[in-house]
Amino acid sequence: MKVTELGEAGLIDLLAKTIGAPADKNLIISIGDDTAAWHGDNGIQLATVDSLVQNVHFTLGNARWEDLGWKALAVNLSDIAAMGGTPRYALVALALLRDTEVEQAVSLYRGMQDLAQQHNVNIIGGDTDCAPFMMISVTVLGKATGKHLLTRSSAQPGDKIAVTGSLGGAAGGLRLLADYINITPEHAAILKESFWRPQPRVAEGQLLVRCGVKTAMDISDGLASDLGHICRSSGVSARVEVARVPVNPAVQANFGDKAREMALAGGEDYELLFTAGDEIMDKVRKALPCPVTVIGEITAGSPGEVNLLDETNRPVVLPRSGWHHFEGK
Amino acid sequence: MKVTELGEAGLIDLLAKTIGAPADKNLIISIGDDTAAWHGDNGIQLATVDSLVQNVHFTLGNARWEDLGWKALAVNLSDIAAMGGTPRYALVALALLRDTEVEQAVSLYRGMQDLAQQHNVNIIGGDTDCAPFMMISVTVLGKATGKHLLTRSSAQPGDKIAVTGSLGGAAGGLRLLADYINITPEHAAILKESFWRPQPRVAEGQLLVRCGVKTAMDISDGLASDLGHICRSSGVSARVEVARVPVNPAVQANFGDKAREMALAGGEDYELLFTAGDEIMDKVRKALPCPVTVIGEITAGSPGEVNLLDETNRPVVLPRSGWHHFEGK
Repeated sequence: MKVTELGEAGLIDLLAKTIGAPADKNLIISIGDDTAAWHGDNGIQLATVDSLVQNVHFTLGNARWEDLGWKALAVNLSDIAAMGGTPRYALVALALLRDTEVEQAVSLYRGMQDLAQQHNVNIIGGDTDCAPFMMISVTVLGKATGKHLLTRSSAQPGDKIAVTGSLGGAAGGLRLLADYINITPEHAAILKESFWRPQPRVAEGQLLVRCGVKTAMDISDGLASDLGHICRSSGVSARVEVARVPVNPAVQANFGDKAREMALAGGEDYELLFTAGDEIMDKVRKALPCPVTVIGEITAGSPGEVNLLDETNRPVVLPRSGWHHFEGK
Repeated sequence: MKVTELGEAGLIDLLAKTIGAPADKNLIISIGDDTAAWHGDNGIQLATVDSLVQNVHFTLGNARWEDLGWKALAVNLSDIAAMGGTPRYALVALALLRDTEVEQAVSLYRGMQDLAQQHNVNIIGGDTDCAPFMMISVTVLGKATGKHLLTRSSAQPGDKIAVTGSLGGAAGGLRLLADYINITPEHAAILKESFWRPQPRVAEGQLLVRCGVKTAMDISDGLASDLGHICRSSGVSARVEVARVPVNPAVQANFGDKAREMALAGGEDYELLFTAGDEIMDKVRKALPCPVTVIGEITAGSPGEVNLLDETNRPVVLPRSGWHHFEGK
């Protein structure tokens, strides 16, 4: 069987089984959540790795090198944010084409360092190779901020489901890079920024921990798909009122009927998706500096099921939900 | 200027400058040694990342998938060994071709897990993408075993220079994969094993620390080239008596005049190269379970200079010393 037939989730499960149960008793979370976590000498430590691959996550035709560096680090900081952690160190494995200009490599690092400094992250090591295609893998190490972590496996029936910020912006930016679209320069700038320079919700993740939230992940594959991950890990199902999902205003203004689908399935927005009871959700709304929108509820239905409902309570069917690396979009 | 014109070492220097001096006061070693190192809550922590790239480090035509997994982890464990550390956790970023068989991906992980278990390392996370080329980046986290680390920057004039094991085996294995060579099956097996399944010298690195050695690195680029790294970092030069360099017996038996060059410049042997005074060197010879060979001496000549001398004290000139990713071999 080809890996494309098995699919990404199936492959990860199989590879985790190949490794077997971890022997280290200090490990709290191994493969399967946003980051790994273990008891360090004086607190919980976190580690995550994520890659950007040429012609999969970006093309050299439309990427600005500084943006590439920013985004390669941002997607990893977002994983630390999704655990409620504090990022500390980054290691960078870089595969460059032979005809890469030195100035391009420097720009890439400059973009990465811009974001690193905003979050007091130190880039402490790396590996640089020439290769037939370009790839950036970043590993970020961090530590837990509070006494517990935000995981995918702790959602309970009755929990409200909420997201930070708004969704669909990155999908709008990607569309803009691929097609000609009649759009104001202001909207174009907002959408490209959403795609290239996502701001990882690190402070927000830490505040979620402080408010008592237990369940969260970052939206990288798309809301519907990522909520499915939470539901499968927690053995619950979810009901989402699609009309309540916050759509990026620049997407709403320019993509008409497609806007809702882009917010539900677009992916790469790196907002936080989390669940909690009403009391905690009230605290969160007061504590977080960004918009927080309740979009639905965790239910006790069949594990892993995500029901998207329109204003008349009828199911909304997405053409395809989420990004599947092993199947194409 | 292209990155190929600047060269790998120049590029790494420039990228380190782009990042600037690290702000974190806990950092001991940032970019430029085998691993990064920092003061953790209760000891020194280590982290390193290294990649294998298709058509650069391996071709799919001749790789066994289990070997690929083994080697991808081995080169990273070797970096931890070169600091005298204990490896603990590994994270794996994997870019696979779309038509990869699931069984191949599982074999790759099986090979990685074989080596991980030998060293009590837990594979705790990763990232898997489909890509136009195959690449495996592994990050390994570890901790210092003793009170100090083995670095590249502490060699002193008068230190003896030594290596563990023998050299040239990996170069022999690589030659065997590329060309038809008339060789016994036993020798062929030894050389292929040297190339595909290097055994990182983790226990040996820890013993070097205990014996009081301060300066070491692992031989990945080739003896002459890697000794140059130590000399540049330490501001010293080196004199190597080429006749004393231990050549892999299977290389000696099959590659005639080329054997010496393969041992000096072949690379990828992942033996430890270290320097120390006579007294410590005596301790090392007794403590290490593998052969230890003194091959020369650190001198106070011009920083970074490596002088290779034959039996009559005449300079030995290598056609090309070491592996240069940005220039081809």
